[in-house]
Amino acid sequence: MSVITLTTDFGIKDGNVGVMKGVIWGIASRALIADLSHMISAQDIAEGGLILSRSAPYFPPGTVHVVVVDPGVGTGRRPIAARLGEQYFVGPDNGLVTMLLEQVERDGLPVEFIHLNRSRYWLEDVSPVFHGRDIFAPVAAHLANGVPLSQLGSQVADPVRLALSQPERTSFGWRGEVIHIDHFGNIATNLRVEHLGRPAQVAVRLGNVEISAMVLTFGDRSPGELVSLYGSTGNLIVCVVNGNAASRLGVRVGDPVEVWLEK
Amino acid sequence: MSVITLTTDFGIKDGNVGVMKGVIWGIASRALIADLSHMISAQDIAEGGLILSRSAPYFPPGTVHVVVVDPGVGTGRRPIAARLGEQYFVGPDNGLVTMLLEQVERDGLPVEFIHLNRSRYWLEDVSPVFHGRDIFAPVAAHLANGVPLSQLGSQVADPVRLALSQPERTSFGWRGEVIHIDHFGNIATNLRVEHLGRPAQVAVRLGNVEISAMVLTFGDRSPGELVSLYGSTGNLIVCVVNGNAASRLGVRVGDPVEVWLEK
Amino acid sequence: MSVITLTTDFGIKDGNVGVMKGVIWGIASRALIADLSHMISAQDIAEGGLILSRSAPYFPPGTVHVVVVDPGVGTGRRPIAARLGEQYFVGPDNGLVTMLLEQVERDGLPVEFIHLNRSRYWLEDVSPVFHGRDIFAPVAAHLANGVPLSQLGSQVADPVRLALSQPERTSFGWRGEVIHIDHFGNIATNLRVEHLGRPAQVAVRLGNVEISAMVLTFGDRSPGELVSLYGSTGNLIVCVVNGNAASRLGVRVGDPVEVWLEK
Repeated sequence: MSVITLTTDFGIKDGNVGVMKGVIWGIASRALIADLSHMISAQDIAEGGLILSRSAPYFPPGTVHVVVVDPGVGTGRRPIAARLGEQYFVGPDNGLVTMLLEQVERDGLPVEFIHLNRSRYWLEDVSPVFHGRDIFAPVAAHLANGVPLSQLGSQVADPVRLALSQPERTSFGWRGEVIHIDHFGNIATNLRVEHLGRPAQVAVRLGNVEISAMVLTFGDRSPGELVSLYGSTGNLIVCVVNGNAASRLGVRVGDPVEVWLEK
Repeated sequence: MSVITLTTDFGIKDGNVGVMKGVIWGIASRALIADLSHMISAQDIAEGGLILSRSAPYFPPGTVHVVVVDPGVGTGRRPIAARLGEQYFVGPDNGLVTMLLEQVERDGLPVEFIHLNRSRYWLEDVSPVFHGRDIFAPVAAHLANGVPLSQLGSQVADPVRLALSQPERTSFGWRGEVIHIDHFGNIATNLRVEHLGRPAQVAVRLGNVEISAMVLTFGDRSPGELVSLYGSTGNLIVCVVNGNAASRLGVRVGDPVEVWLEK
Repeated sequence: MSVITLTTDFGIKDGNVGVMKGVIWGIASRALIADLSHMISAQDIAEGGLILSRSAPYFPPGTVHVVVVDPGVGTGRRPIAARLGEQYFVGPDNGLVTMLLEQVERDGLPVEFIHLNRSRYWLEDVSPVFHGRDIFAPVAAHLANGVPLSQLGSQVADPVRLALSQPERTSFGWRGEVIHIDHFGNIATNLRVEHLGRPAQVAVRLGNVEISAMVLTFGDRSPGELVSLYGSTGNLIVCVVNGNAASRLGVRVGDPVEVWLEK
């Protein structure tokens, strides 16, 4: 039984996500389909790529991840599919896959990219404005059915990569940035446990506040307290216990964060 | 493996959609269920019918579409099921099915309507306020299990039809109206490629602006530009590239739109 | 084919719900998964428990209900699983299960609670901030696969119970409170048909208004009228026909409601 995930900026009102499921089940009648998110900010490729990279590792080998954040739909941008370790990606070639690709490359796993240029794996009529329905959903279904990746198109050597901001080592510790604000208002940074380790003494500075020390989990402090800790995928996060840190601090994606490590 | 879709105005907070899935799986334990939308505006039958009509054609033959936008629940309005070409509809008899029915009639496909009046296909206790759970979900599950439509009730010759506004031919071209604003703020009209063709010269007027020429896809123009094009189901749409046309133009569903065709 | 439901306060943007499905399908590759709600107000245990208790009875026997509203994640609070009649619960031991438990006890059905303390049924790495992914999802999948409840941990005799407010008999009738505002703005109270029966004469007082008489369903009155009736699970609800009662009356969860019964 194959698994397919869907991530888009389509929202949940207009039926477009459901339509993609209809197309998939028309081809792969037993596929299990999970929504990752359809609330990616409109055209926000970085956010879509972040959600994909955090989620994909928890899916069974062979899962096909369809991601459609696609401002270039119908233009010259290529539709692609990729094998990234044991997971598959299907979507536009616009950098959505960059963060997951970098993870997979760090782990030394096999990578293969394909330009989807064989229309017999698509719906018959292809709208220039909805490749999610007409190209990506059917291709994902064929992959789930066991069609080999290489059969879906020709090899690509140069997929588009986003220039992702990297944390910087500094004299005092590390400088990074905010990469995500979640549903609770928790603030996620690109500083990770691999950078910072588990320091006994630490000060986290962002948005005009300084948080000293890290905790293990929210309940280690009282409701309303500002805390820093490692989130569930290893990134440094800043939170208000049972509250909304992003709105309290007025922090947004892209804002700088510093971590001061005591010697 | 049968497919069932769900479209409602229930929202996604209260668990009522999940409950319908529980009821379905209690009867049809292998049904695949796709949500089309649960964000239909409260009691907005026209909107629910529009989403259904745009989505149903992309589902496999035999799919059962349950649509519950039902201000008359528990009153004299009939619960119905219908065969519309190769798709099935289950829901209240209040016009939800009109737009899909008109499509199917235009295509000359078979149509059959049934008044759901055999309570042995329902849950034992029927609340007067939640037929989605107590009548429509179990009926859909029985249909998915292969129970013939005709067994679920008696024939209906006169399903309720909404009077849908039709585009008008004018001296200058066509006059139509706005029928949907999507998640991105794209404005969909009831003018279709069948009305307008692919004119070399065209001017689209709505909300005090005029847009000259149509493009093929969003990326044909720069972010921020106002464009008109055919949406993914063949309707004329007006959009701001990577922006929100409805809020920029202050346009709402029902507003008039004119298309001037150059001779 | 086993059914698993998910109820959380995670929202639908960040992919965390999808990740739980990935984990489940990695262990129970044929499980059917229904979302009940991911819009539970942040950390609102009572609300999560209410949605669970209203929904669970409509699922097939053996369904596993995962509920993650978990302000104490990673602290001393126990992860638990329970059999409640024919349904299973998996989640934190913080009172989420209280309302469903009380229903099941009233019905005299078997109840069993287990402290989830056998890590071989969890993911290998357990984050202190996301037990939904690392403990509850895998445990639910093992239950769905047929692993006996008793094998997942040791017996618990004293699950945490919320002190739920109970309706009070008064000289004039009953006093209760508002327990839920739904998507439509309908106001649900904890007064039930078991308390009030089907009185010929009744006056419902809340938020400075009095509603005389109950109706059977919304369509019994004209749009805009304020009505009281029994909701689909037997609670007294107050609604505006095709409108939003909560915003009209300015009523909130916890507000008092009185029902005056005529002699």
